[in-house]
Formats: sequence, structure tokens, C-alpha cells
Amino acid sequence: MRTALALAEQARLICPPNPAVGCVIVGRDGEVLGQGHTQPVGQAHAEIMALRDAAARGLPVQGATAYVTLEPCAHQGRTGPCFDALVAAGIARVVASIEDPNPRVAGQGLARLKAAGVEVLVGPGAEASRELNIGFFSRMARGTPWVRLKAASSLDGRTALPNGRSRWITSPAARADGHAWRARACAVLTGIGTVLEDHPQLNVRLPDVLRQPRLVIVDSRLETPPGARLWGAAQREVLIYTSDADTSRAAPLRERGAQVVALPNPHGKVDLAAMLRDLAAREVNEVHVEAGHKLNGSLLREGLVDELLLYQAPRLLGEGAGIAALGPFTAVEQALALEWTEIVRVGPDLRLRARRPGHQR
Amino acid sequence: MRTALALAEQARLICPPNPAVGCVIVGRDGEVLGQGHTQPVGQAHAEIMALRDAAARGLPVQGATAYVTLEPCAHQGRTGPCFDALVAAGIARVVASIEDPNPRVAGQGLARLKAAGVEVLVGPGAEASRELNIGFFSRMARGTPWVRLKAASSLDGRTALPNGRSRWITSPAARADGHAWRARACAVLTGIGTVLEDHPQLNVRLPDVLRQPRLVIVDSRLETPPGARLWGAAQREVLIYTSDADTSRAAPLRERGAQVVALPNPHGKVDLAAMLRDLAAREVNEVHVEAGHKLNGSLLREGLVDELLLYQAPRLLGEGAGIAALGPFTAVEQALALEWTEIVRVGPDLRLRARRPGHQR
Repeated sequence: MRTALALAEQARLICPPNPAVGCVIVGRDGEVLGQGHTQPVGQAHAEIMALRDAAARGLPVQGATAYVTLEPCAHQGRTGPCFDALVAAGIARVVASIEDPNPRVAGQGLARLKAAGVEVLVGPGAEASRELNIGFFSRMARGTPWVRLKAASSLDGRTALPNGRSRWITSPAARADGHAWRARACAVLTGIGTVLEDHPQLNVRLPDVLRQPRLVIVDSRLETPPGARLWGAAQREVLIYTSDADTSRAAPLRERGAQVVALPNPHGKVDLAAMLRDLAAREVNEVHVEAGHKLNGSLLREGLVDELLLYQAPRLLGEGAGIAALGPFTAVEQALALEWTEIVRVGPDLRLRARRPGHQR
Repeated sequence: MRTALALAEQARLICPPNPAVGCVIVGRDGEVLGQGHTQPVGQAHAEIMALRDAAARGLPVQGATAYVTLEPCAHQGRTGPCFDALVAAGIARVVASIEDPNPRVAGQGLARLKAAGVEVLVGPGAEASRELNIGFFSRMARGTPWVRLKAASSLDGRTALPNGRSRWITSPAARADGHAWRARACAVLTGIGTVLEDHPQLNVRLPDVLRQPRLVIVDSRLETPPGARLWGAAQREVLIYTSDADTSRAAPLRERGAQVVALPNPHGKVDLAAMLRDLAAREVNEVHVEAGHKLNGSLLREGLVDELLLYQAPRLLGEGAGIAALGPFTAVEQALALEWTEIVRVGPDLRLRARRPGHQR
């Protein structure tokens, strides 16, 4: 199962919005007959890839065990159901890490395997598989993406100098690591303030990138310049959420290829919770937030952030912008509480991950 | 030598301003004959304790090897020179971690041992011994204490809410850990702002404390209230540094037992660098700073802080006071650069230690 999880890990950048799954087929004497992982959307799932691998090597899989990190699908989606293929190939035993949270599968894949006489075991690697597909599980179980808020700050919590400069508070190593987290997301989310002040591209700039996350801009008054730097950055979908799309400013943005979506809240701003539900409906699993302290503060205050991804540089900046506009609080207990998930060094900086209690998955 | 270093570690809270040293005497067949560590000031050094231990156990040490974490002293200080005792006992070989930086020793202890026919080896455990006595080495080599600035902040760098509240941003575990760092210092340093706003005691509140660090207050205008909470907190020396001691406000403070020291700079504030030199002359090895962002900022700006000890709680406070009043900077390169020394979890919080580059010891 460890090999299957490692295969799933390899799939994580190419397969969204499908879950990243790995499969290893093992013969009766313990020899590996075939292995594979999920391919890009519309192409083969992990089980099919493993069966094809065994076939290509001329190894029969009758009576073999398939280790797979997620319950094999039982429905006709973009591809045929995997359980059929496993049964047809004569697989005798399936060990699956965890049930598929997709309501169209949700145990049916396993039930049908059992009904077809295949021995089924569920559980090994469940936690790792769930973590690997935290956005997919979130979308299926909650109807919202997993929202990861990324920030880069000094040791004293400053993300920019008073004059707005922020290049570069963290190291090249930390910034490359940040791109890897962007790359696994289905969407990068930012606010109009960041677009206007920082002129970011917000694409993934890593070698051999096969898939660019969508760009999502929270822009209540449709102030995104049709000539902004972000337009030329990558081939990708751009979604602009606004409070009112019926303005002359929408047309030039649509001409640039953006989808302009009006989701106003009663205060004339974008309804952020509704926006996230809309993104989930558009098959967005993980949202990677790179925004300023205002939008960060709004997302945090509304309880919409699941995880904080903070790169912290060992330097003191003193004055400047903070991570999130919160408060003023009058008692420490009002603070937004998190729990550490991970603390690692990345080059000269730290990568701190923390989650909201109860948002552990 | 590992045992000797562990013994030295045990001495660290009781022996300042003397260095923490451990000694293990090992016989020709590798058996431990005696061991000991530095006692409180004016009492026996580690070598004497180890010799006494062997004597108490009736074990002869003639021809044995003494492992000691610092060069044995050669001078008559508060106690007799250790090298004499080692030679008189018939020790054949001394393995010392590092030379004593005290100019009254500085290689002479080792030289005299060699002259007396004792085999001498220097080096094993040098880094650990130096780290254990970082304040002593700083005082001897630089004429200033090792200055460790402690702060407790949220993940976004806030040490207090806008209304001044800071109890408690970090956990009981982090606060207890902070007391252990206070306990190893020779002096706890604070500013008049903290005295007036937070009413702290700044003593060590841990079980079985044998020695309270001195309390040092930076108080340019002698505003420390003679009725402040800190006076009743512990039996300890209190030093108040001011810009002008010739005021009527000095007398009541002296009556409370404080030493009032005038060390003005040209701006009518306390000359902080001169204050640290004065503290070194008073045999202060490690200074533990617990002050507000203004004094923290002054110490950092003047390059007087060697190490930052930051407890970081996984919560976001948004608005509030920062760690240190620095800037406003206009370029990121102006930031105060540090290097991580240690990152560990303490209860639900993090303990981050970072040093100024070039202040590694």
C-alpha cells in the first residue's frame, strides 16, 4: 500500500479534479505484476493503468490482489467503472485504503466487488489517502473546496513594508515551495487589492507544469484591468466574482476570456461562502489563497479557511502590513485559534502549516 | 565526555557567574571512579567534586584520566586552583573540552598540567561546552553578556491586543519553558514601560529554585514605583539604570534595596551598550530580556541582541503591539536578519530561537 500511496502522490499534480489514486497489483507469491496511478481527467484511472501495465509485461493477474488507495469506482463517469475491469481481469482480492466519498460511489464499488466474489479489505493507508485528496473529500463531503491560505511573512508577522514592498521577504527556496503548493490546487484565489497593488501573475512557474490552476479574483466592483499582467501569464480559466456583473466593465473582461460571476452579499461585496460553493460545483477541490490582509481577514472571519500555509523568514521588519485584518479584539480568547499541522525548514525559512480545530480534514 | 557534559548541564542553574563544568574521573580499565559538577559561587569546582566523590567511594585515582568540560583553572580565585588538586591526586591524563576563555586561565591550566607531566588532550565536546556557557564565553571574550530577547507572540506577530492585554497569548507549557530560560540567566532585563503597564514580577517561579537572577530595569526618568509588584517578588539584586540618578526619586528606590546607576547617552536615555558592559563587569553572563516593543526595538537597532527566543502561539490576533519597534524600512533588505538556531514545539506552541549572523557564540 505504501507503493500505491507513492504512485497516488505522483498523480496529484495532473489528475484534479479527480482524486489522486495509486494501484499496485500483487501476485500470489508477492511479486508486483502491475502498477499505475490516475491519469489526467477523461483518461484512465489507477486500476486500469495497473491492469494495462501487467498486460504490457505479459503477466497474468488471475487470482491476484489489487492494492488501491481509494475505493474502485462503480459508476460510468468520464471513463468506464473500474470495478468491472478488476472483476473481468480475475482479481481475487482488493485492498482499498478508504471508501470513495463521491455519492455516486460511496461503498457501491466495494459492494459490487463483493457481490462478484472478490474478497475486499478496507482501511490500510486511509489517513494518508484522505490527506492526499483533502480537497476532493472536502468537496464531496461538505460541498466546498479545501481552502488553504498561503502567506509569506517576517518573524514578526509582516507581509509587506509600509510602502507596500514585499519582494522578497522569503527566500527563493520558500517561493519555489509555494509554487508547488499552487500547482496542486485547482484554483488560485486572490483579491482585487492584490491585483492592483502587486501586479501578480499567480500562475505556476515550475518546470514541466502540465496543468495551470484556474485563477479566481474577488473583485466586487470589477476593477480588474483588462491589461493586467495576469492575463498573459498562462493558458488557464479565469473566474471573476463580483457583486454586480451588469456593468460596462464586464464586457472587456469577458473578451479576455474571463467568466464573470455575480454573487453579491447584502453589503454589496462578494458572498464568499457562496463563491466557494460555486467553485465546488465547478469541481474545484483545493483553493490556494494568495491575497492581501483584507481578503484574508474576511475569509478567516467567516470561518472559510481550513488551513494556513505560512512561510516565515527569520527577519524582523517592525512596521508593515499584517497577515490578516482581524480585530481589534478586546480579549485574547477572541483570537482565531489554529493547531499546528507541520513545521519544517525550507531553505533559510520556515514552512508552518496550521489548521482550524475541527478542520482536520 | 558525554557524561561530563550532562553533569555540566545540571550545574547551569546554580553556578553562575561561574561557568557550568562537569568532570568524570575514569580508571585505566574504563571504570568511573568519581564525578561532579560546579557548585554555587565560592564552593568547589567540578574537578574537586569528582576527586572528593572518588575519595568518598574509597577509589584511588592515581594514573586515572579526568574528563572535564572546561580547562582546569590555574589561578587562585574564590577557590584554590584545580590543576594543583589534579596533579596532587596523581591524575595521569586530562581530556578537556575547550580552553577557558578567562584571561586568568586561557591555556595556563593546561600548560601547567603538561609541565607537571600530565598528558593533555583538548577538543572533545568543545562546541557543546561553549554553548552551555555561551554567556560566560561572551563576557570573557567580548566584555558583554550574551543577550537573549524573549517574546511571546501570535502567529501574526502580535504580543498584545490594542487594549494592552497579553494574558495569555501562549500556553502554560510555553510560559513554564520561559521560566526555565529566565532561571539560567544572570539577569532579567526589562523597561519602565513594561513595569508600569504589566506590573510584572519577573522572578523565576519554578519549584526548587536556588538562585534568582538579578532584575535590571531600564528607567531613564526613574519612574519605577517604590510600591511596584516586582519588589516583593523575590530575594534578589535589583539594578535600575537611569540617565540621571541625582533626583529625589532615587532615594526611595535605594531604600527598597535597588542600586541606581546613571549611564546617560547624549539623547537623555540610558546608554544601553554601556549598561551591558557594566553588567558584564558585575559578572552577568546571560541577560534575559523581557520588555516591550520599544526597548526591544532599541536593543535590536543598536545590535545588542545576540539571540531571539520567541514563543509563537498558533492563533491570529490581527491588530496589536508587535515584537519590536523597528523601521519603517523602505526596502526589505533593511530588515534585521537572523538565522534559525532551533525550532521545537512546546505544548501547543512553538519555541523559535534565532541568532544574529555572526553572533553564533
